[in-house]
Amino acid sequence: MIGLKVIELKDSSVIILDQTLLPTEVKYIECEDVECIAEAIENLRIRGAPAIGVAAALGMAITAIKNADKPSEILLIELKKSYDRLKKTRPTAVNLFWALDRVIKRAESSKNIAAETVKEALRIHDETKISDKRIGEYGADLLEDGDVVLTHCNAGGLATTGIGTALGVIKTAWKQGKKIKVIADETRPLLQGARLTTFEMVAEEIPVDLICDNMAAFAMKNLGVTKVIVGADRIARNGDTANKIGTYGIAILAKEHGIPFYVAAPLSTIDVGIATGEEIPIEYRNPREIKFFNNKRVAPDGVGILNPAFDVTPNEYITGIITDKGVLKPPFEESIEKAFKS
Amino acid sequence: MIGLKVIELKDSSVIILDQTLLPTEVKYIECEDVECIAEAIENLRIRGAPAIGVAAALGMAITAIKNADKPSEILLIELKKSYDRLKKTRPTAVNLFWALDRVIKRAESSKNIAAETVKEALRIHDETKISDKRIGEYGADLLEDGDVVLTHCNAGGLATTGIGTALGVIKTAWKQGKKIKVIADETRPLLQGARLTTFEMVAEEIPVDLICDNMAAFAMKNLGVTKVIVGADRIARNGDTANKIGTYGIAILAKEHGIPFYVAAPLSTIDVGIATGEEIPIEYRNPREIKFFNNKRVAPDGVGILNPAFDVTPNEYITGIITDKGVLKPPFEESIEKAFKS
Repeated sequence: MIGLKVIELKDSSVIILDQTLLPTEVKYIECEDVECIAEAIENLRIRGAPAIGVAAALGMAITAIKNADKPSEILLIELKKSYDRLKKTRPTAVNLFWALDRVIKRAESSKNIAAETVKEALRIHDETKISDKRIGEYGADLLEDGDVVLTHCNAGGLATTGIGTALGVIKTAWKQGKKIKVIADETRPLLQGARLTTFEMVAEEIPVDLICDNMAAFAMKNLGVTKVIVGADRIARNGDTANKIGTYGIAILAKEHGIPFYVAAPLSTIDVGIATGEEIPIEYRNPREIKFFNNKRVAPDGVGILNPAFDVTPNEYITGIITDKGVLKPPFEESIEKAFKS
Repeated sequence: MIGLKVIELKDSSVIILDQTLLPTEVKYIECEDVECIAEAIENLRIRGAPAIGVAAALGMAITAIKNADKPSEILLIELKKSYDRLKKTRPTAVNLFWALDRVIKRAESSKNIAAETVKEALRIHDETKISDKRIGEYGADLLEDGDVVLTHCNAGGLATTGIGTALGVIKTAWKQGKKIKVIADETRPLLQGARLTTFEMVAEEIPVDLICDNMAAFAMKNLGVTKVIVGADRIARNGDTANKIGTYGIAILAKEHGIPFYVAAPLSTIDVGIATGEEIPIEYRNPREIKFFNNKRVAPDGVGILNPAFDVTPNEYITGIITDKGVLKPPFEESIEKAFKS
């Protein structure tokens, strides 16, 4: 969907595109065990809530393949070990836990454990792509000729393994012939917007302008932004949305400028187990991500550095949540409940 | 004031601290002609509205010194050439034009042109430091124990040659024994917050945490920010304020969180020649500043890049303007007029 495979199960290995090297280098790593996949998730070689879910599921699959000829009890113990290791990789995106839970439950309730584990993992991978497609179609209806869409971080194919969520909406509208333009926040500290979102837009020949994160308000006021669409890492039952750090600020700026603010995410990103965004754990990452760039120090010693990787946007700033079951509107508590029942 | 001289007239040269190399390298350049100073301003070796004004004034001084024994007409022609060259360096900060106009007018109305030009330039340098001190004292009254002050870019001694404007307020309050804490935005693309503001705070042993620009809303909501203080590059007669890109967004976020938003700047930053911020020219800088980071490319070819260096914060978001003539309050049209008359 982006001309590059993001992740793939091949024999008893998982092949992962190392996204930390994009856009200057296209390189794959081959993971033969769960530790390698866990490391890839922790270091953002693969990232984006849906893609992390897929990676974790495929991690379970290789454990199943390697232990296929062992007795059920042993196989289940190995799967549980993989489950525990993968679960610890990152705390915020709920798709990780959702995918791991689905796979382990399947394994536990199957007779042919190894085969069913692999099947369930591949099913999650397939569903993710299908879900992207549906999100793209529902969301594209919201876009029209002349729209200038601001997006943050990378909620594209690189983040999902499909066509992407926020970027899937943009790609689908573009393929429908809608003349739209994208403004991409670079998204510090790891520059997923600069490195990945622009990469996907250029691949699709969709016009894209890159700005620094601190230019979003300027862009809304002076560069004609008409809509904001972002992805999500975890959505609470009331619609509060955790997404890449900076999203909350953009939502406030959008409201102040009267610009609709949409979240695009599959239902698997909605955590019905929690009532509000206050319950979402926020990952703080290594200060080195901010203090160093390309191994060059950019801040003096003696300075404290805070590196929250996500923030929570309260539901009141969200115009709609574009899901694989349609566009949910406020009040989200009701629309989310309805979507899960349908 | 920061333990380092920012700029100095020495014989017939101007010695300038190359701020592009901070915080990892302390290196001075010696400018023997105006072209060297113009280049230093254009490439941000010296930056910050008041410091740019001082640099331009000292540039005029070295032209005067070098041509001191020439006939008045020739000397004035040389000064006019220097004036024209320096005026073209950067468009937004008004202190540049204010300082150049002051010096050239003095030269044109003096008998002892060379000596008076140098004196006027040195007077501007001295006044800038005195003005910082006054801003610091007026502003410190606004701060109290426990304040967490968010600031953007670098409005410190490196930007003014004195103790700084926004950072001068913080330093003065700190010296008064007020227990305050600073949160510094890194300020993309050139990281003046990460490189320079933290450097000044560490030098004064004032507690400072560095964040990425896109973490400002998170900091306001979750890290206890109680006040925002920023500098200014040009203030219109109605209080609309041009400052480093990102300031406008921060002002909106501050309003949404009920946090007072102060601008700290000398009266020389107020351009009474313009009615509103819409008349302030905004500099767009080289896209390379965003596309490359420490010479490493971070965005693919084919992407457009927008690099506005400043934005304009409408007066309605500004709680007060801390000047060398006191803290101006809304309605700014009146308080600014009064300050200029006093």
